[in-house]
Amino acid sequence: MLNISQKGKAMPESPIRKLVPYAEAARRKGIKIYPLNIGQPDIETPELALNAVRNYDHLVIEYSHSAGMPSLRQKLVDYYKTVNINLTAEEIIVGAGASEALLFAFQSIMDPGDEIIIPEPFYANYNGFAINAGINVKPIFSSIDTGFALPPMEDFEKEITPKTKAILVCNPNNPTGYLYSKEELETLRDIVKKHDLFLIADEVYREFTYDGRKHYSTMYLEGISENVILIDSVSKRYSACGVRIGWLASKNKAVMATALKFAQARLSPPTFGQVAAEAAVDTPASYFEKVMAEYLERRNTVVEGINNIEDAFCPKPSGAFYVVARLPVDDSDKFCQWLLEDFSYENQTVMLAPASGFYSTPDKGKNEVRISYVLKAEDLKTSIKVLEEALKVYPGRK
Amino acid sequence: MLNISQKGKAMPESPIRKLVPYAEAARRKGIKIYPLNIGQPDIETPELALNAVRNYDHLVIEYSHSAGMPSLRQKLVDYYKTVNINLTAEEIIVGAGASEALLFAFQSIMDPGDEIIIPEPFYANYNGFAINAGINVKPIFSSIDTGFALPPMEDFEKEITPKTKAILVCNPNNPTGYLYSKEELETLRDIVKKHDLFLIADEVYREFTYDGRKHYSTMYLEGISENVILIDSVSKRYSACGVRIGWLASKNKAVMATALKFAQARLSPPTFGQVAAEAAVDTPASYFEKVMAEYLERRNTVVEGINNIEDAFCPKPSGAFYVVARLPVDDSDKFCQWLLEDFSYENQTVMLAPASGFYSTPDKGKNEVRISYVLKAEDLKTSIKVLEEALKVYPGRK
Repeated sequence: MLNISQKGKAMPESPIRKLVPYAEAARRKGIKIYPLNIGQPDIETPELALNAVRNYDHLVIEYSHSAGMPSLRQKLVDYYKTVNINLTAEEIIVGAGASEALLFAFQSIMDPGDEIIIPEPFYANYNGFAINAGINVKPIFSSIDTGFALPPMEDFEKEITPKTKAILVCNPNNPTGYLYSKEELETLRDIVKKHDLFLIADEVYREFTYDGRKHYSTMYLEGISENVILIDSVSKRYSACGVRIGWLASKNKAVMATALKFAQARLSPPTFGQVAAEAAVDTPASYFEKVMAEYLERRNTVVEGINNIEDAFCPKPSGAFYVVARLPVDDSDKFCQWLLEDFSYENQTVMLAPASGFYSTPDKGKNEVRISYVLKAEDLKTSIKVLEEALKVYPGRK
Repeated sequence: MLNISQKGKAMPESPIRKLVPYAEAARRKGIKIYPLNIGQPDIETPELALNAVRNYDHLVIEYSHSAGMPSLRQKLVDYYKTVNINLTAEEIIVGAGASEALLFAFQSIMDPGDEIIIPEPFYANYNGFAINAGINVKPIFSSIDTGFALPPMEDFEKEITPKTKAILVCNPNNPTGYLYSKEELETLRDIVKKHDLFLIADEVYREFTYDGRKHYSTMYLEGISENVILIDSVSKRYSACGVRIGWLASKNKAVMATALKFAQARLSPPTFGQVAAEAAVDTPASYFEKVMAEYLERRNTVVEGINNIEDAFCPKPSGAFYVVARLPVDDSDKFCQWLLEDFSYENQTVMLAPASGFYSTPDKGKNEVRISYVLKAEDLKTSIKVLEEALKVYPGRK
């Protein structure tokens, strides 16, 4: 029979994308939409990255090394030195985005039926990669009331079974913006050490920290260098999502040798993207200072704006460019659709990501939304105003 | 335990790459190596593709549509019209190379434990994708003595079980260069129709046909439009392997809706590669005329050269830029390694791909090698001379 696969049926629709048809319909009605639903920054890609591609003068665009161009990997080694992480080029495998790198990691250490523990809410596509690899996600609930802090060690241990192979954290976190402390990471270290698990750390938002706080990498944790698999990317750091360059890094030789076989099967990561990524590493500190000042203003605008709305609540996270906010609504899936389908304020509306898609446990996050602060502060102010007006008239207001 | 996965252990090493350390050692000894082992053409990428990337003036390199930029997909629709294939942009999903597109296809229609039938010898990475998707390859033996023609219908039917979901063919074929006839494709149509199977056709070498023969696409086959999934790429057509742009195309809406979910999970294909690919479609016919004349001369040089070697045999295939040749050796894996490790002729040697890696059945292809004619005819002549001299002194000569 010409059936599609069970796996294919199980693949979730992206919570970010399922509202797209409603947005298109709203645009056709002439309504201006503020897109706060996606993690696509509006910040310009550093010009030296664009120039490197413009000036690339090879006559044949060849396959690169399956693990990524040696020159790019060496550049990444240099980059890591600046954040006090010691890696060699052999400890890095470049993928078509952190997406592919994470899939290589999943497949290298887990077989179908194996389990991975992830604090929820978590980046929705982790579900897709898990289904793709045939593994089961065991969520650990983290609460908006604690600002999405790491749940206690006991909560993790309750979920560990003989099938458990790894814990995955995103730090700073997408969707919550939460920046894990050194102490929280040490808790994770104790768990993975005690139970002999891998610790996969998605640190693609490493540079995006506020309030004077510094990012503490899983790579700093002592005594678990064989356990840690780092996932990283240029997408957010250099506002270059479209180049599709991410990587995994680990001191665990068996993991890297296995991941390389998966990498070889698909030949190589994209050449032009690698050229851009290699150049991007030289982006001057002044670029980041400007970018961070911009994001800080945006975060404050969003957090303060939401907390000024009656019955709404938004923790003030110290990282990334997302917040998860609690709104006085019956069902944020319905609310987000209603915003596009039935509402406008001065011919404007906002597009938000319902948080339900970031939870693996059914019915969690029903009154929460993820907001990406990837627009200028002025537009964010207007967006908050629109949201406030919407909540005044939304039929499912609680 | 910090073990790697069973799947990871099962992933094969690339037959093309496992000789690389021996080649590096030979180079260090000052020996010139003619690389006939890889499918990386030396032909220049069309300049208009390179220029499109050089002139790309967006300030932010954003994610594209998960299925690929609409403008690229429309361009591909236009391209297909020129080869009498009718497709719409919605019937195309762009991937990071045909590799990713094929994986999307596998995952969309097959679950772990399902089976796919592939005539062998076949492109070695199909094994990697199959292991990746957890599916089992059932090879059907095609023989060098018939020039690797399609095996008869009975051979396929013997392998069909309730687990069989699809047949995969590569046309023109990598590694054999064999170009399937209309009649052979109609046989495949009859099989997939009778047994309700998918027919996946990897047609990335479509333009590379010789001897006045025309490529007959699976998309021309009537009555099985729901069964056919086409895999295609710009890599070989425009000598642009490094852009990592391939795609799957199908009239089967359920397949495409499912593949799109896999595509969404990894966000988007590489933007710069898509820009190059879109421009490449406008490559003038004169480019191909020159390229085909070049490849024709190369094929003839290789085929005649090998058939002039005592006890060697090479069929004369009508497509792609590969041949599989039979050599008078005990074990081509050993022979190919010996060529790099222990042999040189006038300080030169050749790097070939042992054919064993292209067979799924153990011990098949032990005296065969794949030769990619991706070097100038002059270099190919030298390569054949080197090969001839090597066979005179190889200790495992048969």
